[in-house]
Amino acid sequence: MRSTMQDVPLSIGDLVRYGTTVHGDAEVVTWTGGEPRRATYREVGRRAAQLAHALRALGVTGDQRVATFQWNNQEHLEAYLAVPAMGAVLHTLNIRLHPEQVAYVANHAEDHAVIVDASLIPLFAPLLPKLTTVRHVIVAGDPDADPSPLAADGVEVHRYDDLIDGRPEEFDWPAVDERDAAAMCYTSGTTGDPKGVVYSHRSIWLHSMQVCMSDGKGLSQADNALAIVPMFHAMSWGLPYAAMMVGPSLLLTDRFLQPGPIADMIEAERPTIAAAVPTIWQGLVAELEERPRDVSSLNRVVVGGAACPPSLMRAFDERFGVPIVHAWGMTETSPLGSVANPPAGTEGEERWAYRLSQGRLPASVQGRLVADGGTVVPNDGKGVGELQVRGPWITGAYYKDPDPAKFQDGWLRTGDVGTLSPDGFLTLTDRAKDVIKSGGEWISSVELENRVMEHPAVAEAAVIAVPDPKWDERPLVAVVLREGRAADAAELRAHLADRVARWQVPERWAFISEVPKTSVGKFDKKTLRKEHAEGSLKVIEERG
Amino acid sequence: MRSTMQDVPLSIGDLVRYGTTVHGDAEVVTWTGGEPRRATYREVGRRAAQLAHALRALGVTGDQRVATFQWNNQEHLEAYLAVPAMGAVLHTLNIRLHPEQVAYVANHAEDHAVIVDASLIPLFAPLLPKLTTVRHVIVAGDPDADPSPLAADGVEVHRYDDLIDGRPEEFDWPAVDERDAAAMCYTSGTTGDPKGVVYSHRSIWLHSMQVCMSDGKGLSQADNALAIVPMFHAMSWGLPYAAMMVGPSLLLTDRFLQPGPIADMIEAERPTIAAAVPTIWQGLVAELEERPRDVSSLNRVVVGGAACPPSLMRAFDERFGVPIVHAWGMTETSPLGSVANPPAGTEGEERWAYRLSQGRLPASVQGRLVADGGTVVPNDGKGVGELQVRGPWITGAYYKDPDPAKFQDGWLRTGDVGTLSPDGFLTLTDRAKDVIKSGGEWISSVELENRVMEHPAVAEAAVIAVPDPKWDERPLVAVVLREGRAADAAELRAHLADRVARWQVPERWAFISEVPKTSVGKFDKKTLRKEHAEGSLKVIEERG
Repeated sequence: MRSTMQDVPLSIGDLVRYGTTVHGDAEVVTWTGGEPRRATYREVGRRAAQLAHALRALGVTGDQRVATFQWNNQEHLEAYLAVPAMGAVLHTLNIRLHPEQVAYVANHAEDHAVIVDASLIPLFAPLLPKLTTVRHVIVAGDPDADPSPLAADGVEVHRYDDLIDGRPEEFDWPAVDERDAAAMCYTSGTTGDPKGVVYSHRSIWLHSMQVCMSDGKGLSQADNALAIVPMFHAMSWGLPYAAMMVGPSLLLTDRFLQPGPIADMIEAERPTIAAAVPTIWQGLVAELEERPRDVSSLNRVVVGGAACPPSLMRAFDERFGVPIVHAWGMTETSPLGSVANPPAGTEGEERWAYRLSQGRLPASVQGRLVADGGTVVPNDGKGVGELQVRGPWITGAYYKDPDPAKFQDGWLRTGDVGTLSPDGFLTLTDRAKDVIKSGGEWISSVELENRVMEHPAVAEAAVIAVPDPKWDERPLVAVVLREGRAADAAELRAHLADRVARWQVPERWAFISEVPKTSVGKFDKKTLRKEHAEGSLKVIEERG
Repeated sequence: MRSTMQDVPLSIGDLVRYGTTVHGDAEVVTWTGGEPRRATYREVGRRAAQLAHALRALGVTGDQRVATFQWNNQEHLEAYLAVPAMGAVLHTLNIRLHPEQVAYVANHAEDHAVIVDASLIPLFAPLLPKLTTVRHVIVAGDPDADPSPLAADGVEVHRYDDLIDGRPEEFDWPAVDERDAAAMCYTSGTTGDPKGVVYSHRSIWLHSMQVCMSDGKGLSQADNALAIVPMFHAMSWGLPYAAMMVGPSLLLTDRFLQPGPIADMIEAERPTIAAAVPTIWQGLVAELEERPRDVSSLNRVVVGGAACPPSLMRAFDERFGVPIVHAWGMTETSPLGSVANPPAGTEGEERWAYRLSQGRLPASVQGRLVADGGTVVPNDGKGVGELQVRGPWITGAYYKDPDPAKFQDGWLRTGDVGTLSPDGFLTLTDRAKDVIKSGGEWISSVELENRVMEHPAVAEAAVIAVPDPKWDERPLVAVVLREGRAADAAELRAHLADRVARWQVPERWAFISEVPKTSVGKFDKKTLRKEHAEGSLKVIEERG
């Protein structure tokens, strides 16, 4: 028996129509270093319509891919709206990928046009000759930037503003099948070629609703949202589309991602919510210590992309009265997986334990833990296994690359290892490939890192497994000390002795100037392992 | 180009699995007059599984309809979960419909089984012989109730608890197509036969997300939700399914719908949110004046089903510090249409104007106004037209009755007349059939009613159009005075003179003891019009 409900597809076109009219007065504010640029959602909607007309004029039809190579700014948002709404597919290129990988990704997706920020011409120009399908490059931003380096056979170069100027300010966004592609983003895997995840109109709509749910990120019209997480990283965690759904103002960082400008932005524009990886907030804490600013407008800060050090979460609470809300997700999960909203009524350390977990999986994201042998581990908060997830905004394949090893019975294998509590809270202890198996027992590298980072002299710590003749594997800690602070391996071992089981305390330590990072700011343990294997990491052994 | 997203259907089975495990500790509390009955979501989940096994044993297969004739209580919730999750269709019978209409509805839906609350046996028994498709009656509740009146050829009568006792506490909820029927509810139209609306798994899931959105009703795990709106009225406004999605405790009134018990419930169980039609809150204000109780646990009260008198909203704010959140919807809209969350930053009377409107339509509910001639009226906050809506949880037909007059180009004609502001706020002035056209100008019956009800002596006021030789139509006000208070037509006219345009002040007044109500508690203007036409309404004419 069919329902009598209308068969209305969930579509970005309807989202754009809604956000740019009903919430037409909301503002998009782009940071410039000087006076911020301001536009209303209504104006952004008109320009998105003009952009869609311009892209049609350049021959963009059907589901052709239109790529972006841009910072978080108004023009990038216009592309977010126009490209999927017109039925084409938005492909956000990660400007921090290795140039060879950017070229691979653009060719693999068969991008037809690329919108490039003027400030990124020097980075993009050397790539352009390697892009085999791109026919149009559209330069947005600084009108004085020199476009001449952008030269390649068969490629036309356009000025964004010139291209859209004078075109109609309305576009009759076509009807779509909600399961059709709307946008794509490649994972920045540390091994092998990047892999494409293709979001649908449906997945983006459902994900946006989740972002706006009280137990999601609770985004609402009353918010003023600062999106620091790049629009080329997992769709800026869904903020741009969720903003169209409920109408908060949207504050975009452009290229000003250093702690100083971010502190200035918060003081000047008074966001209520901000989203970024832990490194950004680490930097902000140091910045505000040096030069205080008023960050009291924030009523929550969403942190994901990597586990947030507990010391950072506590610092934010204590110094600024701003709760950091821990969240977990990945490009493959749109990305919102879990959000650590602690259960009502919890207090003190119990509440902290919930807040420090990766959070609760919502109804739309089913999770299960699978042990090495392939058996499902009970969700008792103790059993450890690889997290597998299932749901309407979780990928079930990679673009032109089904990669069956990453899936099991239709569930995505996340590569993350941890526990699930009976009340649905996820605690990750490792990436599957980072697990340390010492004498038959698991040691959590994340746990060790967090404990080491609680030492006042430590800025960052990354733990990897290294071969050990007696225990098979043992942890090695790579430590970055704070400027002007000192601590040696013996002191850090003593610090850990009170905090972890005695047999877990590492014997191998390396003091380094910086933890290598991936293009999305995560600890790049692959590089550390390689350095260790090659003998280029200077290791101190300390058993005292 | 298809997306790579998993094709996971939105299903009540997954919702039940999630809510009864992850939120297994949340409570369902059923009021009894004495000690409330308590069960965890986990226990309710087990009993829902048992109920599903029992229904299968009674021959319920495929998309057969299982009806309920119950109050808001634990067993009704168990049916809400079990019936759609097992793939059958839940049909909530409205116990307040005329018996002939209940019989019509049950036969039209071809109900196979009916779960009847023991306290409703006297009401249900006379109907039973008229039900042509019902094979099983399951009596829930009071074990001492006498089931012997439930006798009809070919009908087996069962005890709910006996029927489920000993059956397996898990059920492998089958996979469904998300567009398949999950539940149905008949409208209680005042003209003609009731019409069936059939909700899908998809529509219920999406609607539940909306209920939990910050700018929806903001339902969250931290809530304790008091569902006064009956589970046989438009799915209790979506609270039961939304509760499964995010895990608030759920407080159910059973048959105790009088102001006294409701005040007791609020004081004893400390809900944070409650939902009911205006009449309930009118009664509560009077009750609390007489015998104060602590209602400070409420942080919002959702009011819909009929326009909320402004005087009631202000009273709630002033006396209890509890905001009434005005919402609009209908059985055909699942029912959540608009919710009056005023825009951030608004204050004073501007904020009140937003709060008194029917609220903002969300992204998932598209609205347009259509004038008499069929032309679309601009959303400028001034143009008046009939509201038409479109979206994934809006009906596009009636069950076995397409009724094309109720739809236009796939949009539902709501029969409600009003304005839409540029920022998406809906203000209803009338039901289409209640519109008063006086000398070519429209008079809003709702506006007049609200103004009359601001008079301290007035408890209720209902306005209908009556024929007028000079103006075509003029308003007639039927007034119910508060106990012990007096006011005559001249005084009420003087009261109105300051509040509405002079030409709108009515000349015709009737003082009555009670406004006739429909089965869902709305003013029954059809009956008033009939009484007026028959001359049984005593009308005072006053032009002074």
